[in-house]
Amino acid sequence: MREDIVRIGVVAPASRIDHATTRKVLNLVRRIYPGHSPEIVFHPQCTLSCGHFAGDDEARARAFLEVANDKTFDALWFGRGGYGSCRLGERILPALGEAAREKIYLGYSDAGSLLGGLYRRGCRRVAHGPMPADIRRPGGEAAVARALAFLVNGAADALEPTVLEQAPVAAFNITILSHLIGTPLEPDLSGHILMLEEVSEHMYRIDRALFHLTSTPSIRRVAGIKLGRCSDIPPNEPDFGQTEEEVVRHWCAVSGIPYLGRADIGHDIDNKVVPFGRWRK
Amino acid sequence: MREDIVRIGVVAPASRIDHATTRKVLNLVRRIYPGHSPEIVFHPQCTLSCGHFAGDDEARARAFLEVANDKTFDALWFGRGGYGSCRLGERILPALGEAAREKIYLGYSDAGSLLGGLYRRGCRRVAHGPMPADIRRPGGEAAVARALAFLVNGAADALEPTVLEQAPVAAFNITILSHLIGTPLEPDLSGHILMLEEVSEHMYRIDRALFHLTSTPSIRRVAGIKLGRCSDIPPNEPDFGQTEEEVVRHWCAVSGIPYLGRADIGHDIDNKVVPFGRWRK
Repeated sequence: MREDIVRIGVVAPASRIDHATTRKVLNLVRRIYPGHSPEIVFHPQCTLSCGHFAGDDEARARAFLEVANDKTFDALWFGRGGYGSCRLGERILPALGEAAREKIYLGYSDAGSLLGGLYRRGCRRVAHGPMPADIRRPGGEAAVARALAFLVNGAADALEPTVLEQAPVAAFNITILSHLIGTPLEPDLSGHILMLEEVSEHMYRIDRALFHLTSTPSIRRVAGIKLGRCSDIPPNEPDFGQTEEEVVRHWCAVSGIPYLGRADIGHDIDNKVVPFGRWRK
Repeated sequence: MREDIVRIGVVAPASRIDHATTRKVLNLVRRIYPGHSPEIVFHPQCTLSCGHFAGDDEARARAFLEVANDKTFDALWFGRGGYGSCRLGERILPALGEAAREKIYLGYSDAGSLLGGLYRRGCRRVAHGPMPADIRRPGGEAAVARALAFLVNGAADALEPTVLEQAPVAAFNITILSHLIGTPLEPDLSGHILMLEEVSEHMYRIDRALFHLTSTPSIRRVAGIKLGRCSDIPPNEPDFGQTEEEVVRHWCAVSGIPYLGRADIGHDIDNKVVPFGRWRK
């Protein structure tokens, strides 16, 4: 990490964030880092609106590239998940320059589509963790502060503990990773401990996505799976009869992938940071 | 097709069907084919119950194999969709014998997981079309009668019209095919006209699954995509701003896959039969 003022660019490749969210984040930054704040630049694209998205594909891709390819930014922080990052892969990845390869990228949920593609393209400072929009959760300042501690100081206590074991790691939302299989955004996770989390999906959908992941030869090359939190699971009709951990254990047993226990990630304020690969501060 | 009495075995590799459904189907058969009924055998497994499924994985796989490997059955008819077929792939496919390769398989929706796997394993009489459980829809007898006309007589008017153009074809539910990508159940659809349909998925999910499908090199080898009906789409928040046809046209344009117009398939009573490959009665 640099010792001078850290400069972080925020873009929203999926759903938009509103001005109230950006204000709350900027206020928090000033409170946590009095006198020596990191500079957080919310790209104007963040608050655009185009149907489901924070601006059309062209506007979102352009904003992403403006920050990614600008060497004055130390980090690109995904503003929010929702849906839409996967739509930008073919516009963004071939246009990444040298500055983009040295940058930190931080986000989760839908952002995993681009995290996967960036990691595949050789970006080595890609991380799964809290985003500015997490400040809207009750107690969400803790999540945003943790993300900042990682971005500004590479703070060890912001990290999911497995990271410090020095095995290569990666983390994804289950549904998002399932939709990357076979595409140019699918990262090579051979030998990685793969942490998975989910939100707002029926148990039968979680089961189906885990069938998908664990049935592909590429995912069968991971070193093992750790299960993060699966929250807000809608009731299954009829009752699925298995918990998310039983489901993951089942598919690990079928596929021969070691099940390595729980991971401290999820769609919540306790979501820890998982920098992909082998951790080096 | 054989001229003697056609024998059809019904199994339920996903969700269960109830006795009322089987009775309605058997009554319909007797009414349509007075004096010379095809023999419809509902395997007892159809009405088992185990959490989400019509019996546990072992019971469902065993029932499937009993019918598939029995040369006295001309056809294996999937009783119902729901969820669960994908869980049986690794149990069923390696255990298929010679009789299984000559059999007709008919189903759709979740059944597509096994249709894909069967087609990949060299079964050449795999078809996407109505199932016994469709009789529960208002007017559903028409769908079941169409399936029977196909199973018993290979009736041309039961077929989706594209089938008669003599190009290789296949049909899938969008979400199901997305979950087969990269797995041993993914069929080789090179050169096929691929018909796709969907039900009860948000537009953003349809968009995401189409990103997935059209971004994979294997699906990019299809001859073109035809869009079936997408029904019961829950409201998108915010409004997605594109119809399902605009979404498919978008992904076809991005991927270079020809968009070939609409297909007469869907989760409804008008769902036509699509035998995979090049049609031969």
